[in-house]
Amino acid sequence: MGNTGKLIIAAGEQSPDLYYRTGFLTPDPYIYVEIDGVSFMLLSDLERDRAKKQAKTDQILSTSEWENQAIKSGKRPNLLNIAAFFLNSRGITTLHVPYDFPFGLAQGLLAEGFSVSPSEGSFTPERALKSRKEADMIRKVQEGVEGALWEVVALLKKASVRDGWILSEGSVLTSEKVKFIIKQELLKRNLIGQHTIVAGGVQACDPHQEGTGPLPAHLPIVFDIFPFSEETRYFADMTRTLFKGTVDPVHRHLYEAVLSAQEKAIALAAPGIDSSLLHQAVEKRFEELDFKTGEVEGRMEGFFHGTGHGVGLEIHEAPRVGRTGVPLRPGHVITVEPGLYYPGLPGGVRIEDMLYITETGAENLTTFPKDWSAVAIP
Amino acid sequence: MGNTGKLIIAAGEQSPDLYYRTGFLTPDPYIYVEIDGVSFMLLSDLERDRAKKQAKTDQILSTSEWENQAIKSGKRPNLLNIAAFFLNSRGITTLHVPYDFPFGLAQGLLAEGFSVSPSEGSFTPERALKSRKEADMIRKVQEGVEGALWEVVALLKKASVRDGWILSEGSVLTSEKVKFIIKQELLKRNLIGQHTIVAGGVQACDPHQEGTGPLPAHLPIVFDIFPFSEETRYFADMTRTLFKGTVDPVHRHLYEAVLSAQEKAIALAAPGIDSSLLHQAVEKRFEELDFKTGEVEGRMEGFFHGTGHGVGLEIHEAPRVGRTGVPLRPGHVITVEPGLYYPGLPGGVRIEDMLYITETGAENLTTFPKDWSAVAIP
Repeated sequence: MGNTGKLIIAAGEQSPDLYYRTGFLTPDPYIYVEIDGVSFMLLSDLERDRAKKQAKTDQILSTSEWENQAIKSGKRPNLLNIAAFFLNSRGITTLHVPYDFPFGLAQGLLAEGFSVSPSEGSFTPERALKSRKEADMIRKVQEGVEGALWEVVALLKKASVRDGWILSEGSVLTSEKVKFIIKQELLKRNLIGQHTIVAGGVQACDPHQEGTGPLPAHLPIVFDIFPFSEETRYFADMTRTLFKGTVDPVHRHLYEAVLSAQEKAIALAAPGIDSSLLHQAVEKRFEELDFKTGEVEGRMEGFFHGTGHGVGLEIHEAPRVGRTGVPLRPGHVITVEPGLYYPGLPGGVRIEDMLYITETGAENLTTFPKDWSAVAIP
Repeated sequence: MGNTGKLIIAAGEQSPDLYYRTGFLTPDPYIYVEIDGVSFMLLSDLERDRAKKQAKTDQILSTSEWENQAIKSGKRPNLLNIAAFFLNSRGITTLHVPYDFPFGLAQGLLAEGFSVSPSEGSFTPERALKSRKEADMIRKVQEGVEGALWEVVALLKKASVRDGWILSEGSVLTSEKVKFIIKQELLKRNLIGQHTIVAGGVQACDPHQEGTGPLPAHLPIVFDIFPFSEETRYFADMTRTLFKGTVDPVHRHLYEAVLSAQEKAIALAAPGIDSSLLHQAVEKRFEELDFKTGEVEGRMEGFFHGTGHGVGLEIHEAPRVGRTGVPLRPGHVITVEPGLYYPGLPGGVRIEDMLYITETGAENLTTFPKDWSAVAIP
């Protein structure tokens, strides 16, 4: 196997597999190679000195030597040719690359005579199993998420209701205003929140609708907050559904249904349990309570997304918690986030916690309350 | 050509080519196809209804039909098999895909009997040529960048100097504090600034070092701010080098050298001019002034990065402005950002404007001043 190497060519910024190995972020793609357990980075002059300080890679090399070789051979000094000259200099003939390695680059390497095979699944399957240290980094992000939502709760407590809308400091409260407050709180902890969802009423019935305009009183408002830390790059993910005003029994029932389904799924989470069982438990609970899923007037309603996903350096990563699953293992960090969405009601409710699977069961990394008295703000 | 299709499989979030075509963002990958000028998206139930409202695609289809076909044939209902069944249903045999199409997926499609070829260069070369509307979106982001830096200038004007450090509101001003102020200002305009650089003294000599700890008085401090709009997804990019205190003539000379090099490069920018000429003008100016570039004690110093890059839906996109270039064309948005870095001095200076190439010349999208009286704050 002496002539085999692992190769990644990607921007540190865009490849969690690469960042996991190197701890180094770049806006532009660079070449990373592993040969017999020794890791190499080939970097331009712009990034090399910073990498020497920041990267946890064995050898940090300048691209210039292989650029010059490429130019001497009448080839362009691009990533493909630099990689080829470097790999040839090390006697490498066979390359393992990630599943999402760029097809154009792979074709170029094949044309240069390398044997190139993509990984079947993840290139870094160990990323799915978080150490206690990683779980703590995720928990720290989660603390920021909860701090941000507490600000919103404080705001809603002070707010009033007029003509069915939420009134705060003399004007109608909007999704935009609340998202700004959340993101500002996140920023204080160096967390970047993109696509934060603050969606009420009928908007909440599209699970990924971010929300816009005035927020309705009396109806469920979905808050889905999933930032990452600029420092550690780990994500956290939480959803809560809050109400301001007087809640109709139909909406309370919807809320309690989602909560009971989520609790049933959470109770199952333990090592050895197939993650699809959590999804089945949610579906079963909704069936018991007669909440139907399907297309009505050309639009999906009920429960029509997965129950959860892994969280780490990516917001959606292994393992899945859905129709298809995998046996849960100690170290998995997963979300459990059932939801019910009925545009006609209108009402969308989703409740999401993050679990850390341990040797004996699961630790809930989410501490924000979800009982009725906490979410229904009069 | 009736049996040929264009195919992208990517997350809307991660593929500017896909976002440019669809205007639709997703955290997870989905299938996008163009056949004879008609565009299709194949989406899960989770995203389909939102896409109907937000995407500018001709046909928005559910994956379920092809998932079921895959399952009936004993295959997994994954993106590869869903795409293959859909493409077969349309009689497609030949696929054009982006250069960075995932190699694993390409191999799977080849195994299914498709002919698959990656694009040579960009899959969407028209992205490099911005309409007036796109330039205005970039300019709007740039307004936020400048607003944020004006906040910093106001802070530095009020600040004082003690023991060689900048003192603000009773404590030593840090990179972290200033970055927080900048990001907070950006957030007010829904701009997300990652990797904002506020680096002084020797830290500024690593061009991508983000900066940490107390900020030095009297020495150059590099501010490189390049957020994107959560709304339009366009980036802007500006660098200024500011000073607080009494500036030594050596540092002023360094600043004036970079400014004069930048001005010479900007003066050249016009349609038909090869972008490499701007880089050459910068190098020539630094040679004239005897600023040397090379490795000193194992570390690069002088001018050792490109002069600029295109800006749009990506922070670094076509065209390049460096050793290799392309003829500038009306619609290009490029940065011009020479820098000089001498750790021994210590001093790092970079000045960056963004230009919009027009039919007759270039419009500077950056209005923040850069003359000595504006950047040297006593």
